[in-house]
Amino acid sequence: MGEDEQIKKAFGNTLRELRLEQNISQEELAAISGIDRSYVSLIERGINSPSLVMISNLCRALKVKPSELFIKVEQNIKL
Amino acid sequence: MGEDEQIKKAFGNTLRELRLEQNISQEELAAISGIDRSYVSLIERGINSPSLVMISNLCRALKVKPSELFIKVEQNIKL
Repeated sequence: MGEDEQIKKAFGNTLRELRLEQNISQEELAAISGIDRSYVSLIERGINSPSLVMISNLCRALKVKPSELFIKVEQNIKL
Repeated sequence: MGEDEQIKKAFGNTLRELRLEQNISQEELAAISGIDRSYVSLIERGINSPSLVMISNLCRALKVKPSELFIKVEQNIKL
């Protein structure tokens, strides 16, 4: 897996983990963060590369700092 | 300034700071990270919202972890 794929997969897995920890559905996360539900699904599956503004909106919706989210992403890359 | 503008400005300022600390020109950063120089300029000026993959490539070029970069971005938002 190339580095681009790796970061997208690790970000998607981290996003799903954080969402499930908080018992939020993809629909709810989409509604809170103002992102289309199908787009949330593509991000979680590691297919799409979300923009900085989307990352920031997703973090606000999940009540985590971007730095905290990326610590988890980096742990997921090393797995 | 809205939250979208705030994160783009803070990210751009952080990127410029890290680049200048390492005495790298925009041209050099663009070449190392595989991103067009004019696009690096738009990111640094807080106009463009880089994708996750671009953020990852910029971090690799500057030898910082994304989590470390975002700690600085969050400090720049609070300024």
